[in-house]
Amino acid sequence: MANVTLKVEGMTCGHCVSSVEKAVGNAGAAGKVDLASKKVSIEYDEAKVSLDKIKAAIEDQGYDVV
Amino acid sequence: MANVTLKVEGMTCGHCVSSVEKAVGNAGAAGKVDLASKKVSIEYDEAKVSLDKIKAAIEDQGYDVV
Repeated sequence: MANVTLKVEGMTCGHCVSSVEKAVGNAGAAGKVDLASKKVSIEYDEAKVSLDKIKAAIEDQGYDVV
Repeated sequence: MANVTLKVEGMTCGHCVSSVEKAVGNAGAAGKVDLASKKVSIEYDEAKVSLDKIKAAIEDQGYDVV
């Protein structure tokens, strides 16, 4: 398993938190958003999902991984 | 039919806009949010729904009608 923390711009409220965490989950990883710091802690299995796929899933929801 | 514009605090993103417009709709009225001005334009039938009920529906979603 791998752990990474991404900085994500554009999250403003609890709905955004849910959208991002759901997107990470749908990509096959586990994400936890800290809205105040705009950070998303992600745990994933490198054998099953790539970090690029996870980033793409977040960006598909309209947020910027910076 | 009556028309009223409410000022609503706490809306930050498109998800919030959807939540407020859906709440107004579920209350039996029609609402349109302008996020930039934090205003919600509402059209409703006074014979069928009270303004208090519409305000309560918005506040139930976690926003403040000011």
